[in-house]
Amino acid sequence: MPLAERGVTVIDLSADFRLNDAEVYHEFYGAEHPAPEWLPKAVYGLPEVRRDTIADATLIASPGCYPTSILLPTIPLLEAGLIDPGQIIADSLSGVSGAGRNASLPFLYVECNESLRPYGVPKHRHLSEIEQELGLANGSPVTVQFTPHLVPVNRGILTTLYLAPALGQADDFDQWASAVADCLAKRYADEPFVRITGSERLPDTKNVTGTNSIEIGWAADPRTKRLRVFSAEDNLVKGAGGQAVQSFNVRFGFNETAGLPI
Amino acid sequence: MPLAERGVTVIDLSADFRLNDAEVYHEFYGAEHPAPEWLPKAVYGLPEVRRDTIADATLIASPGCYPTSILLPTIPLLEAGLIDPGQIIADSLSGVSGAGRNASLPFLYVECNESLRPYGVPKHRHLSEIEQELGLANGSPVTVQFTPHLVPVNRGILTTLYLAPALGQADDFDQWASAVADCLAKRYADEPFVRITGSERLPDTKNVTGTNSIEIGWAADPRTKRLRVFSAEDNLVKGAGGQAVQSFNVRFGFNETAGLPI
Amino acid sequence: MPLAERGVTVIDLSADFRLNDAEVYHEFYGAEHPAPEWLPKAVYGLPEVRRDTIADATLIASPGCYPTSILLPTIPLLEAGLIDPGQIIADSLSGVSGAGRNASLPFLYVECNESLRPYGVPKHRHLSEIEQELGLANGSPVTVQFTPHLVPVNRGILTTLYLAPALGQADDFDQWASAVADCLAKRYADEPFVRITGSERLPDTKNVTGTNSIEIGWAADPRTKRLRVFSAEDNLVKGAGGQAVQSFNVRFGFNETAGLPI
Amino acid sequence: MPLAERGVTVIDLSADFRLNDAEVYHEFYGAEHPAPEWLPKAVYGLPEVRRDTIADATLIASPGCYPTSILLPTIPLLEAGLIDPGQIIADSLSGVSGAGRNASLPFLYVECNESLRPYGVPKHRHLSEIEQELGLANGSPVTVQFTPHLVPVNRGILTTLYLAPALGQADDFDQWASAVADCLAKRYADEPFVRITGSERLPDTKNVTGTNSIEIGWAADPRTKRLRVFSAEDNLVKGAGGQAVQSFNVRFGFNETAGLPI
Repeated sequence: MPLAERGVTVIDLSADFRLNDAEVYHEFYGAEHPAPEWLPKAVYGLPEVRRDTIADATLIASPGCYPTSILLPTIPLLEAGLIDPGQIIADSLSGVSGAGRNASLPFLYVECNESLRPYGVPKHRHLSEIEQELGLANGSPVTVQFTPHLVPVNRGILTTLYLAPALGQADDFDQWASAVADCLAKRYADEPFVRITGSERLPDTKNVTGTNSIEIGWAADPRTKRLRVFSAEDNLVKGAGGQAVQSFNVRFGFNETAGLPI
Repeated sequence: MPLAERGVTVIDLSADFRLNDAEVYHEFYGAEHPAPEWLPKAVYGLPEVRRDTIADATLIASPGCYPTSILLPTIPLLEAGLIDPGQIIADSLSGVSGAGRNASLPFLYVECNESLRPYGVPKHRHLSEIEQELGLANGSPVTVQFTPHLVPVNRGILTTLYLAPALGQADDFDQWASAVADCLAKRYADEPFVRITGSERLPDTKNVTGTNSIEIGWAADPRTKRLRVFSAEDNLVKGAGGQAVQSFNVRFGFNETAGLPI
Repeated sequence: MPLAERGVTVIDLSADFRLNDAEVYHEFYGAEHPAPEWLPKAVYGLPEVRRDTIADATLIASPGCYPTSILLPTIPLLEAGLIDPGQIIADSLSGVSGAGRNASLPFLYVECNESLRPYGVPKHRHLSEIEQELGLANGSPVTVQFTPHLVPVNRGILTTLYLAPALGQADDFDQWASAVADCLAKRYADEPFVRITGSERLPDTKNVTGTNSIEIGWAADPRTKRLRVFSAEDNLVKGAGGQAVQSFNVRFGFNETAGLPI
Repeated sequence: MPLAERGVTVIDLSADFRLNDAEVYHEFYGAEHPAPEWLPKAVYGLPEVRRDTIADATLIASPGCYPTSILLPTIPLLEAGLIDPGQIIADSLSGVSGAGRNASLPFLYVECNESLRPYGVPKHRHLSEIEQELGLANGSPVTVQFTPHLVPVNRGILTTLYLAPALGQADDFDQWASAVADCLAKRYADEPFVRITGSERLPDTKNVTGTNSIEIGWAADPRTKRLRVFSAEDNLVKGAGGQAVQSFNVRFGFNETAGLPI
């Protein structure tokens, strides 16, 4: 962090400063953190959640692709006390560019094409930042079931969230489902990069490929008194460099959408 | 059913005789059942579960592709009383051949390639036979959350099941996880078309494409005290015609694997 | 053409006004041309070839996707008298979006994925405008072998041209190959949307997807005294709407690259 | 060749013994041949062309994937003196499994998906065996233009051959085209693995994937007095191991189709 120490603002796309806690870093990344003194100063760069803090930050840790797709739909519902923090399941599908550009066998064309497979269970590295941020929204620790899958597209993450009503809210399911819909619709009404599809049309990654947008939709299920919330994003834009540019715009006072396809 | 009425054995690949109950048929398929008197006589043709009944049947209703991928991993666990029947979630990814060969826009190449999308929630037609068969295994009705997704492969279904311990069994999670593993491994030890991958290697549809096999694997998660079970099959073989041939072999006393790639 | 008759400038993406000759239109499109009086007035909208005429045109017929990929590499060589006009072969691969958005069986995902197939031989409709424009560049009629293939990508055309030296120029093959390279490099040196890759790196459609650029490269073959020239473009941009916008910019005096990714 | 020296029959899938001439081997493979004394004894294992010799061979060099797709359609026409040996062009599209299972960047999923690209021009290694075998069929040396392309499928080669009438045969083009059609149809009438599609339906790799069959079709073009011949095969079966098994069946007197999907 020589740059940050000299006061230069750093927007970091790596996972190094996303966690507040050096012990959690050690647990998930298997190494001592090399600069733990910077962890409490780093801001987790999710503009829709931390816009004000990003505007003043010196070190911005831009979120991972999976966490972005999970946190944006879930944080408002946890903050509003609508969902049970003990029953969150995030099931995600990722295109192969999420694996980076490493010449390794599992990511060869013939290994990925015509292949559908889970991986990284039960403790994918991104789970640490997911649980950290959901815990902050909830006010107390949250444990999540997270299952990533590799599927044959170049770009895109589709996340399916299985959510249950918070304690005591399942009695009038329709009212609860309606409160959830209102909560998401209102929270993101003015966000340029969040496209609420509601329950009329469900998200599809091809609608957001090449853009910094995330689509969020849902389907309430009165039979099981549960809710599915879906999100779709481009893992290389909203899930990576695009979001970092969005933080850059926020930090330096540019129009937040400058240079970013919607 | 003129054929069956004349005593000819019929193996039906359609959904017409998979349900025992004409009312459930009406609820999910939106039409009166045209031959309800045959519903109680039809046998649901899942050979690993109903081998003996298939051997004597006149009308065999071959299961749907999604139900096969969900029922084979779940039925043994329900019968053994190991999992909570009220908390079953089935999240499935399907190749496009599952949609049949209809010239309609959503299934054009350009609409499906580079696209990941959920559909058919919350009440996909296959849910009816899934819940019927799980209810029979459980001894009382079961309600399931089932989410199908369309992903760009020709063939293959990958199902991720989220399962919780039955009441009172969560206290010693490791013991429970071990009992689940034993249950599946023993149940399918001699089945030629069930490949148990355990937790060392997770299922991948490309391992079973073109075969009548289903791969089943799992990952226990001590953090959430939950289990994920995964299955992979070829929706056009084990999930359709291959399984029907397997029933044919059982019904007429041929070697069960005759003509079927493993 | 009510609009053009009132003096409104029209840029037409359809094939209706690309041909100068109503008889050729009838031969290739199987119908009488509905407004033959407009054919001589229409300008074939290939900006790199007709920039000056486009700037004054009322009716601009924007070229087809295959013709663009074939004409840009070939016209300069014909105009320079370097290649034999009687031995031109154009072998093209096209992504499925080239077929439009029609719900018909041959373009379903499962029909196109894992499929490689020729079609439309020997007289694809685009052949008519290809031969017309090459004939104009040559000063006398040209007949071309053109073979389109359908391959499983969403976007992109890759054309491989097989070209022979003009009469009397094969004796010093190296000198001829060098003259060809110079001709293309010089002709397109200042064109913002033409990327000459030469023979060091061959064109690849993924380099131009989403842009209005065309890549052109080549490989001389001293063994056969023949040349292969390759081009890659995005059929939906340089091969369609992007090129129309480029003509719009030329026609109305905007910066030619305005609104167009390079 | 210790095995062959002890009299054990060897069917070799590698390229080591496909060439008769150690100098050509050195030219195309860049190394001295390690066992040149075996080159004249090895039989090029194309059963449809060398069935009798294969039946007696000790060392069978199974052909490469591209050569198989080019030689089967072309050899009969050369032997019949129907085509001009100086004007053969072979344009081939190959799936990514043709590159083997090497963890290298160009064959990663994201590098190949949504990509169309030529490579290996002008002297792909397979060109050496193509020209050798065509030269034998012709009775004198033949030089070929061969352009391989990499396209995003797992399996399959689609070859488009551009052929011209032999000297003096272009005068009655229709008669020539009909002689070509007869020649191919008769030559392969009884071959179990050659499917002649003629000109009614053109070859498509998806029709032969997973089989040892090759489809051959054609389109005569009276405008250019040229012929296009197309072939489609699975590069991993007819283009590799399947053909080797076919040679094995021939060599040891089994039914030639034993174990091989048609």
